[in-house]
Amino acid sequence: MRDLSNDRSLISINSMTVKPWSLAELVEGCARAGISAISPWRDIVQACGVERAARLIRAHDMTVTGLCRGGMFPAADAAGRLAALDDNRRAVDEAAAIGAQCLILVVGGLPKGSRDLADARRQVRDGLLALLPHARQARVPLAIEPLHPMYAADRACVNTLAQANDLCDELGAGAGVAVDTYHVWWDPDLARQIARAGRNILAYHVNDWLLSTTDLLLDRGMMGDGVIDLRAVRALVEAAGYRGHCEVEILSANNWWKRDPGEVLRVCIERHQRVV
Amino acid sequence: MRDLSNDRSLISINSMTVKPWSLAELVEGCARAGISAISPWRDIVQACGVERAARLIRAHDMTVTGLCRGGMFPAADAAGRLAALDDNRRAVDEAAAIGAQCLILVVGGLPKGSRDLADARRQVRDGLLALLPHARQARVPLAIEPLHPMYAADRACVNTLAQANDLCDELGAGAGVAVDTYHVWWDPDLARQIARAGRNILAYHVNDWLLSTTDLLLDRGMMGDGVIDLRAVRALVEAAGYRGHCEVEILSANNWWKRDPGEVLRVCIERHQRVV
Repeated sequence: MRDLSNDRSLISINSMTVKPWSLAELVEGCARAGISAISPWRDIVQACGVERAARLIRAHDMTVTGLCRGGMFPAADAAGRLAALDDNRRAVDEAAAIGAQCLILVVGGLPKGSRDLADARRQVRDGLLALLPHARQARVPLAIEPLHPMYAADRACVNTLAQANDLCDELGAGAGVAVDTYHVWWDPDLARQIARAGRNILAYHVNDWLLSTTDLLLDRGMMGDGVIDLRAVRALVEAAGYRGHCEVEILSANNWWKRDPGEVLRVCIERHQRVV
Repeated sequence: MRDLSNDRSLISINSMTVKPWSLAELVEGCARAGISAISPWRDIVQACGVERAARLIRAHDMTVTGLCRGGMFPAADAAGRLAALDDNRRAVDEAAAIGAQCLILVVGGLPKGSRDLADARRQVRDGLLALLPHARQARVPLAIEPLHPMYAADRACVNTLAQANDLCDELGAGAGVAVDTYHVWWDPDLARQIARAGRNILAYHVNDWLLSTTDLLLDRGMMGDGVIDLRAVRALVEAAGYRGHCEVEILSANNWWKRDPGEVLRVCIERHQRVV
C-alpha cells in the first residue's frame, strides 16, 4: 500500500472547517501549518474583497481547490431563476479571480411552497445549461455536488452521484462532479458511479458520519470519528483517475467550530495522514 | 380522479403514531374512530401478551397491516447473528399469531465497530435467506423496508427501493417490500422502482418530511405538513397494483406524541382523506 504519511501536499482546508477564520486568517493559518491548498466559501472571499483575496492567495502560493458555492437554481418564479443565474455568473467570476480549480455547486432544493421534486430537478438542469457557457468562457469547471438525500427539500435535489453523472453526460465539457464522503458514503451504487465519473471528479471532500448525529446540517464528524471507510472511498476515486486534493469540509457547530482553528488544522493533518 | 373522501376503510394506524397507547387502547381507540386497521410494534404486542393481543384484534375485527418489526440482522459475530435470527423467527410467529399481513423488516446497519457497509449488506442478505423458510412455513410475508440513507449506519443498510427489489428478486416467494414515503420520497429512481416492485408491495406507509426537521429519528411530519407529494406517490403504488391500506407511521417526540392520541387519530383521518 502506498505510503500516505507526510502527504500534507494533498490536504486542502475548506473554510467551513475553520469557520471562525477570515480569508486572511485561513490563508495565513494554513501557510503556517504547512498546508498549501484551501477552498473558501464565498462569504469570506466577499468580506475580504475579491481582488485582495486573489492577491493574498497568490502571495502565499495557495492552491484553491474550489470556491464554495454556486447553485441554488430552482425558484418559485422566472425572476427568482434569473436572479439565481446572475448570482451564479458572479460566482464563476469570483472563482476565476481567485484561481479556483472549480466552482462547487449545491444545486438547490424545492422552491418555496413546492412539492414538485421532478420540476426542481428540471430547473437545476436548465440552470446548469444556462450557466455553462459563461463558466466555459471563464475556464471555471462546474463541480456538481450531490448532497445527502436528507437535504433534498432545502439544499440540493441532486442526491446521488448517478444523477450528477447523468447531468455531466448532458452538459459535456466544463462540467464535473464533487464527491463528498458525507453525502455519498451510504450509496449502494457508489463504486460504479465513482468509476463512471472518472476524470470528471473535480473535487474530493472528506469528513465523517457520526453514529450519534444530532443535527442534520451542523454535526459532521472529523475523519476517523465516524463510520465512513474513508480509505476505501479514496481508493475508488484514485482508481477512477483522481489525482487532486482531499478537501476537509466539516460543519460542526457544537464541536469543531468551538475550538481554536489552529488546533483544528493540526487534527485535520493528523487524521488526513492516518485515516483518509 | 378517484374520490378519496370517506375511504376510512383504507387507513391503518401504526402504533408509533399514537405511542402513548397500549395495544388494547390502540385497538379500542381505532374502533371508536371507525378505523379498522392497525399495525402494532412488537413492544406493545408483547406487553399485552401475544394470545391476548390476538383475541383483542379478532374481537374488534381489526385488520393488521403489518407487525413492526423484525430485522436487525448484522452483528459483530456469529452468536449475534444467530440471536438476531432467533428473534426474527419469534417475530414471524408473533405476526402469524395476530394475523398480520406481513412482518416489516428494518434490516439493521453496521455492526458495532464496523465501517464495512458492503459486509453489513451481505449479512442482511444472508439473514433474509436464513429467515425465509420459517416465514414461508408460517405464511408471513417478509416486507423489506428500505430506510432513508440517513439511517444507513445505525438502523438499515438497505436504503433504496432498488436494493429492496434486488433482494426480492433473489429471495423469491414470501418476500416483498414496504414503501414508506418518508424513506423514499427523495429517490430519483422512485417511479421506476415502485413499478418494478409491483405486486411485491406489501405495505405502504405514509407521513411527511418537514422542511425544518430537527431530529433524524423522531421528527416526522403529519401528512400535509411537509414537502412530500403524497398523492403522487400513492398514484405510483396504486398503478403498480397495490390495493392495500395507507398506514400512518409518525415518530414525533415533540409534537404528535405529546398530544391526546384520540385527537391524533382525528387528524390522521382528516389528512388521509385530504392529502394522502
